[in-house]
Amino acid sequence: MPSVHAVIMAGGSGTRFWPASRQDRPKQLLPLLDDKPMLQAAVERVADVCPADNVWIVTNPKQKKAIGKLLLDFPVDRILVEPEARDTAPCIAFAMAAIAARDPDATLVVLPADQVVAPVSEFTRMAARARELAADRKTLVTFGVPPRFPATGYGYIELGEPRDDARPRAFAVRSFREKPDAATARRLVDDGGFWWNSGILVFHLDAMQVAMAAHAPDLAAATDRMRRAIAEGRRGQVTRAFKRAPKTSIDYAIMEKAEHLAVVECTAHWDDVGSFPALARVLAGDAHGNHLSLHDGAAATLLESHGNIVYAEGRRTVALFGVEGLVVAAVGDAVLVCPKEQAADLKRLVERLRAEQHTDLL
Amino acid sequence: MPSVHAVIMAGGSGTRFWPASRQDRPKQLLPLLDDKPMLQAAVERVADVCPADNVWIVTNPKQKKAIGKLLLDFPVDRILVEPEARDTAPCIAFAMAAIAARDPDATLVVLPADQVVAPVSEFTRMAARARELAADRKTLVTFGVPPRFPATGYGYIELGEPRDDARPRAFAVRSFREKPDAATARRLVDDGGFWWNSGILVFHLDAMQVAMAAHAPDLAAATDRMRRAIAEGRRGQVTRAFKRAPKTSIDYAIMEKAEHLAVVECTAHWDDVGSFPALARVLAGDAHGNHLSLHDGAAATLLESHGNIVYAEGRRTVALFGVEGLVVAAVGDAVLVCPKEQAADLKRLVERLRAEQHTDLL
Repeated sequence: MPSVHAVIMAGGSGTRFWPASRQDRPKQLLPLLDDKPMLQAAVERVADVCPADNVWIVTNPKQKKAIGKLLLDFPVDRILVEPEARDTAPCIAFAMAAIAARDPDATLVVLPADQVVAPVSEFTRMAARARELAADRKTLVTFGVPPRFPATGYGYIELGEPRDDARPRAFAVRSFREKPDAATARRLVDDGGFWWNSGILVFHLDAMQVAMAAHAPDLAAATDRMRRAIAEGRRGQVTRAFKRAPKTSIDYAIMEKAEHLAVVECTAHWDDVGSFPALARVLAGDAHGNHLSLHDGAAATLLESHGNIVYAEGRRTVALFGVEGLVVAAVGDAVLVCPKEQAADLKRLVERLRAEQHTDLL
Repeated sequence: MPSVHAVIMAGGSGTRFWPASRQDRPKQLLPLLDDKPMLQAAVERVADVCPADNVWIVTNPKQKKAIGKLLLDFPVDRILVEPEARDTAPCIAFAMAAIAARDPDATLVVLPADQVVAPVSEFTRMAARARELAADRKTLVTFGVPPRFPATGYGYIELGEPRDDARPRAFAVRSFREKPDAATARRLVDDGGFWWNSGILVFHLDAMQVAMAAHAPDLAAATDRMRRAIAEGRRGQVTRAFKRAPKTSIDYAIMEKAEHLAVVECTAHWDDVGSFPALARVLAGDAHGNHLSLHDGAAATLLESHGNIVYAEGRRTVALFGVEGLVVAAVGDAVLVCPKEQAADLKRLVERLRAEQHTDLL
């Protein structure tokens, strides 16, 4: 049986949580839910999936320091630092190269750092199921989440025939659908044959290498070059090879085109907590539908206010009086006020701040 | 001709500007409009009305220190500290007693500290006109503001016959009206014969003493006791006499009942800036109707936001994204978000904070 390695992708910049998230402090490092950052939860999530020595983190130079501070015991040689952000395909290629250089007969469990997946025991069970499906060294396994609402922020996976009768359920994959518009999302959810694409993958190195060779030869070549450079300890070479990998997502480069695919039902509670309003789904609310995420001495007083999200850090009080449906975030030297419906678009505000030279706030 | 003294009433607690205003930092000490607090502007306003030695400030123990810090050169013996807040009637009685002890043949110009009246030259002209009317030692003179909108936050003065042809215009007073409801306010403004009550008064000591003796003998007695105690340097006696004065407003105790009244047209721009939304009337706005009052390094970035009021102090950035009609105030350890329509009610939020034991924030 191949060994198992876990790869935690922790490279996102998370502008949709500004001013909580900053360049050097992305979403996965925030205490959004409780006082445990999502990255730390992700490391704990794979504890029963593989030996501790087989856990890897892929991140970028800006976040390396904060990650080291958060995970004091995590060995630096398993924190892979991308020379630049190039989306998930080069990220996974980099991890494959590093793992292949050490352990070529490996199954990889690849998971984004910035998701809520609970409980851990359910994740372990799902991962074991996926690992069995990937044991043929051919099948690329994804996890699909039975949709709870017609989300437009996630991609969807169209289910094919069931693989077998085992649990969690597994299906062949008929197609991948990119993030739909509202009407399409409604249709996909009503149809029942579509699950959210969780972004979590399980595959044997051989399977992904074959798929890359068939559908993204540039990516296959970059992976191979990185593997050899890592084996030979030539860091400059690794950087050059990484930068030549196509800047694209693994879904677009491989998954949408590959032949041997399976999707396993995510039986855990899954949420990618994509922006402030998502906190309403993962945090308990008060009697008026307000959801508070308060840290390091922060307090909130709400009077005649309904359906708001308040996020604050540090000794300060946020007072809402007669407001509805707002996101109010107060962190460090910045205060944000925006309607919940607009919070997913926060990137535009961050761009404006950049244009106004407020780079110290980003 | 009697001498002129100016009495600046600076006792208000200003909960309607929380979190900018605190118990020890009321509205008149805030840099609401520019970086000059209203109290300082009030002192400058009377510079041509009377000699500098004849300017008095009445305040309360909590604000005395902050006033001393703001007005470094203002002599402490002309800062009258009320033993407790008892509304405007005892406040004016206290000032009358202190002035009468020094200068019994005096005309008083009494003005609230927390108003905008500009330009100063116009105030000087109005005060001179009022002083002439008060020279008969009988007439109590008020200033009325021709209403610019049907305000429900001000009292109104009903105009009687014109006094003469001089300018600014002066009329007899037919009646005083308390703060009206919206429909009544509309009617008063449409009628044309009603002006806002500015709260500014001019009278000779004799005139007010006679009116007090006729309509509020308790107040007259308290004034006389305070005057004697001050003349004899017995501070305990002053305190006791002050506390025995009826806790009421000068309008209710005297003006609404007095016979010899005149109202002079306030020809200056007058605004009492009663709450955050009033800043929109006295500060220039941006192209989207947002009004910003930023101090000590505070900044604001507004994107797709209209008709908001932002008040901030200290090195911080307030970012509004897609919001409309809000008051957002960030001062020290507190952030407030509330709709403009509700800002005049801020007192209720302050009461809630008090009930929640957030007294450190008040």
